[in-house]
This record gives sequence, C-alpha cells and structure tokens, in this order.
Amino acid sequence: MTLDQTWFSEAHDLSGSAISYRVRRKLDEVRTPFQHIQIWETTDWGNLMVIDGCVMLTTRDNFLYHEMMSHPALFTHTSPKRVVIIGGGDCGTLREVLKHREVESAVQCDIDEQVTRMAEKYFPELCESNTDPRARLMFDDGLKLMADTEPDSVDVAIVDSTDPVGPAEGLFGARFYEVVHRALRHGGILVQQSESPIVHLPLIRDMRRFMKAAGFAAVRTLAFPQPCYPTGWWSCTMARKGIEQLDDFRDRGAAMKKFPTRYYNVDVHRAALAVPEFMREGLE
Amino acid sequence: MTLDQTWFSEAHDLSGSAISYRVRRKLDEVRTPFQHIQIWETTDWGNLMVIDGCVMLTTRDNFLYHEMMSHPALFTHTSPKRVVIIGGGDCGTLREVLKHREVESAVQCDIDEQVTRMAEKYFPELCESNTDPRARLMFDDGLKLMADTEPDSVDVAIVDSTDPVGPAEGLFGARFYEVVHRALRHGGILVQQSESPIVHLPLIRDMRRFMKAAGFAAVRTLAFPQPCYPTGWWSCTMARKGIEQLDDFRDRGAAMKKFPTRYYNVDVHRAALAVPEFMREGLE
Repeated sequence: MTLDQTWFSEAHDLSGSAISYRVRRKLDEVRTPFQHIQIWETTDWGNLMVIDGCVMLTTRDNFLYHEMMSHPALFTHTSPKRVVIIGGGDCGTLREVLKHREVESAVQCDIDEQVTRMAEKYFPELCESNTDPRARLMFDDGLKLMADTEPDSVDVAIVDSTDPVGPAEGLFGARFYEVVHRALRHGGILVQQSESPIVHLPLIRDMRRFMKAAGFAAVRTLAFPQPCYPTGWWSCTMARKGIEQLDDFRDRGAAMKKFPTRYYNVDVHRAALAVPEFMREGLE
Repeated sequence: MTLDQTWFSEAHDLSGSAISYRVRRKLDEVRTPFQHIQIWETTDWGNLMVIDGCVMLTTRDNFLYHEMMSHPALFTHTSPKRVVIIGGGDCGTLREVLKHREVESAVQCDIDEQVTRMAEKYFPELCESNTDPRARLMFDDGLKLMADTEPDSVDVAIVDSTDPVGPAEGLFGARFYEVVHRALRHGGILVQQSESPIVHLPLIRDMRRFMKAAGFAAVRTLAFPQPCYPTGWWSCTMARKGIEQLDDFRDRGAAMKKFPTRYYNVDVHRAALAVPEFMREGLE
C-alpha cells in the first residue's frame, strides 16, 4: 500500500525505513532562523512535533525518552544540584529533572525559542515546570553556553538535541565534549541522546571514543524503546568525569522515589544497563 | 511526504501508525489456502516476509524476536527436553531452540507449509537446523496438535504465531491455554508472542487472565525491541505449570552458554524481567 496525505511519514534514509502516523490535520507550522517546525494532530498519538521533517515527539510516547534522558543520570550522580540541559526545547526533560528535589538549578538552553513556544501551546503538560523557581530557560547556542560556564560547576549536563546534522552537529564532536568535561564537577555526568542501537552503532562508537579522548573516566550506553524514532529503539550515552563507574546508582532512592514516572523505575534503570550481544561486540 | 511504491508499508490500524521499508523489488508471492505471503528485497533490511499485509520478519532484525521467544523460556526451565513450537514456520525459533543441547526433540507445527518453503528459499540461515535429527516439521493446526498431545509430556511450548486475527485467533483463547496446560509437564513453560506493550496492554491483560484461569501458576511478560513490528516494541508472555515463579533462571548456564546469540545474554534476560511503571499499573 502507499501512504498518502492522511499520514505524516518520516523516511529515514540511512536505514531505509520509515515511521508514519495517521493525522487529522496540521495544527501549526513555523519557519525559524534555525529550522522548520510543524505540529500535527494524530488520530492515536496525540500531538506530533516535527522538525525539518524528523519526528521529535508525540504526546503518547515522549515519556520514554524524557524519563531515560534524565532519571538514570540523576540517580547515578550522588548529589545532582546543578543541571544544564542543552537542547530540550520541548521542556519535557526539564520537567523530569525538576522532579528531583536535590536539584537546585536547571538551565535549559535551546538554540530555537520557537520550539518552546510550540511546546507551551501543543504539549502544555511538558511545560508545567517551566515556572519552577529553580528553572531557567535560555535560547542560545549550547556549545557557547558550556564554553562560558565556570569550570567544575555543573553536576549533570544533558544533551537533548536533534540528530547530528544541522544545528546539533557540533554537539557530537570532540571539541564539545572537552568543553562539557571542563564545566562538570568531579563525579559529574554528561548524558546525550545517541540514536538507534541497531543502525547507529558506528556513531555511538565515535561518541564514546570522543568522550574518552576528552578525559571522561567512564562511558555507558543505555538502550530504551522509543516508537516515534527510527527503528523504534533508541539510546542515551552517559560519560562521567573523574569517577570510573556508571553502573552503581542510588537504587534505594530510585526504589523509593517520591514522584511518578511511567517507564522509569529502579528495575528499569538496572535493566537499561544490560548490553545486548551485538552492542557489546560492536562497541568493544 | 507520501510513501510511494518504492516502499513497502504496513499500516497498523489499531495504533494509527505505520512502518515502511524501502524496497528494490518483490521477489515472490503466493496465495495459500490460509494466507497471502509476499517476499520483498529491501535496500537495508535484507529480505522481508509479509503475510496478509503484515510484516513477519526481516533478515536484519529477526534475531531479536527469535532469541527472546526461545532463550528466556529455555533457560528458565530446569531441563527442557521436549519442545513444541506452534506457528514459527520461518524456522527461526526452531533454530534458536536447537542451540540448547538439553533439547531432545523439537516439533514445529505451522498451519501453512508455504511459510516454511518461502523461508527455506529467502531466509536459508533460519532453516539451517531443519535437518537436525531432533527437529520435526509438521504442517497442521496447532490447537489440534496440542489437544492430541499426551498429557504431562511437553517441557516448553512456544506460540510463535501471527496476530490474534485470522488463522491464529484460536491461539489467544481460554480453550487453547487449557489444552497447552494439560500437555505440559509439571514446571513446564508456555511462551507466546504478546504484541506491543504500548498499544496492546488490554490484550496482554486478557492473555494473562486466561492463562491463570487455565491453571497456570505464574505469568510473566517480557518486553524487547523489534523494529519491524508495530511501534518497534514487542513482548512475549510466559506462563508456568505447577511452579509459582518465572524470575529465577539458570543464570550460570546463560552466562556460560555454548552458542552464539546477537541480542540475548544473561544480562539481557534479567533486564527483560523489569516491568516498566505503566505496564505494572496496566497489568495489575
């Protein structure tokens, strides 16, 4: 069958596969200096945000990604007080981060203010912590922000960016990892979205190599389901400064967490540390 | 964008989502008394088998499903000697089962011989154990086979079927589970593909309820990535006769397994037992 205009389709060239959602109508659209943002109303996945033709999130399944981009890193750090989010303009990661009471400040720095304006309108539930006094929303270049950050001052840096082409390209390079490493405190953790385990293993391998070259003492890639991204399987990669381990985490804290989640729990965290055979071989 | 005839698309009505593969050409096609089977050559996923418009498997990612349908159950059973596979005509599950040296016999019973004939031609690697002296290939009704099986004679029954519509519908009903329960030995395990955790939770809940009503002492649903199935996230549900646990498994055996896998290992097995928050709530 062919998929006509009643579907929004993202064809992922690298993997020769596509994911589509049945849509009712386009709700909004804006061309910013950085990118082209569309919002669609789907029949079964709530609202859909698309940037430059790539699915960013749906109402129904973004919890998987946002929880996995935040809670494993925050429960691995012994005392995450100062958090920086690079990208993350939809504010979903910020919301998860601020569920942790230990967090004293969370800066979100997306290059494109329009992403946040669209999220406020079409994904208001993700923006419900934007007025938290600990939150600060900036619209600037993330690499520049990290370069200007005082050395040894950040506990957790989360890179919640688009794919490594276009505006986000610099966030996957050696220079960026050096800058983040410098900004992190001892024991600090960088966590970055690292694409699909089954089609982007060479990219993940490069990221890990660059992270180690930048001085990080440990790296760890966690896989998780994410239906709206190519192959439906996604990952984040953590890197730690000064401490050579990312496996132990505050499991009692996670087991007794004081906030609701829909995917993450202490068992899911431990499970995400398991490395499938082909990844073990491919990343060695 | 629209996806034209250079793509094979499966639109999944229940979830209003679709998955597509870029294709070079249709390699084969047959209408059997049971279903319509197509084989496509894709640009990036090897060959693709489609039954009645639904993606069954691709060369590239079938290892996920086949390994998770077999190894967790076989490493949970203390001594899996006699295995029956209902469905599984592509022979990929059979191949995984026969990697276990403890297995003395494995009967594969698919209703449609043409599935196996197509697999032999287009997925020969999955059929490499078909000539194993322990293997027996039957083409018959799986429910009938299980009803005719001597009581207390089977260690592991694997239901590797299509969706619960069409020929496989009876394999998701209370009557079938009673028949399987009767055929299993004490401690025996039924494992069945149970669709997508994120869109089929009501089905999984029904399956588990029917399994318990049929007398099974424990049930457990394991989730795993499967890019070619709707939402890219799939599951299997295990049920056990007479023994009220499915969490402990022969972890030393799994850690020291004598055969290669590409996804499964002892950590992946343990990880698959983790239950995400929304599943815990939805299945309670």
